[in-house]
Amino acid sequence: MILKILWPGKTRDKNLRELQEHYLRKISRMERCELVETKEARGLKEESSRRIKKIEAEALERHIKDDYIICLVHDGEEMSSEEFARFLEKLASSVGRVVTFVVGGFLGLEEKILQRADSRISLSKLTFSHELARIMLLEQIYRSLTIIKGMKYAK
Amino acid sequence: MILKILWPGKTRDKNLRELQEHYLRKISRMERCELVETKEARGLKEESSRRIKKIEAEALERHIKDDYIICLVHDGEEMSSEEFARFLEKLASSVGRVVTFVVGGFLGLEEKILQRADSRISLSKLTFSHELARIMLLEQIYRSLTIIKGMKYAK
Repeated sequence: MILKILWPGKTRDKNLRELQEHYLRKISRMERCELVETKEARGLKEESSRRIKKIEAEALERHIKDDYIICLVHDGEEMSSEEFARFLEKLASSVGRVVTFVVGGFLGLEEKILQRADSRISLSKLTFSHELARIMLLEQIYRSLTIIKGMKYAK
Repeated sequence: MILKILWPGKTRDKNLRELQEHYLRKISRMERCELVETKEARGLKEESSRRIKKIEAEALERHIKDDYIICLVHDGEEMSSEEFARFLEKLASSVGRVVTFVVGGFLGLEEKILQRADSRISLSKLTFSHELARIMLLEQIYRSLTIIKGMKYAK
């Protein structure tokens, strides 16, 4: 399985950034995995939310191609970690394409990207900051790989 | 409202620890809030899980008294951030006691503590590392206070 993770802009918080690198290293020891921090819309006020989401969607789309797309959305399907692991395992054996997770910026994802999604999943009913959600996703991908491979989860 | 947060042992991961302090500072600007990192069971192997949970439960109980107890458990009630804020707001106006969140260690909470809980809530259907769950809880308490007070969420 080849995993790709896309989100707009570099993680700014230093601690979250270090945690991100920590989990990416762990994931990369088990699967081919690439993170692309795509171009973010800068210099626009939050009120221009449609324009921000459009600019960021265009940058994300440039990296998607014919991948199997999993969008993280608030009203997506919730799974247990075990179910998430089995979901990824099934994709690995059935989809001959790159499996790409797409995480929105602080305003979320544009409808155009959501329409291309093969799956829409949610990490929680709660809303978390988009940078913390990145770490939650990475931790969960790492956890699911340890479940799939029957390895002990190592912090 | 007086908030208290209890969990066994100091957060070991340096980045999570810094995030913890970051959110605690933000929460403390809005509500009285105390974090107590209670005694953890050391020097025991994971196989002694019952003993570990018992030792940690005794240490947690020493700080509970007659508080309103909210335990974080995997099969607890899930809420949206808006619902969580309204839940805390209602407690603030109706419960004349300290509102105490109890988070288990890496083995979770002992049944004895769970039986004393006034509420059992879950952050997600997914399982996260217990140290990451701590940050998720703090971020959520901070977020809910901004919702209650009608403030802008500031990262």
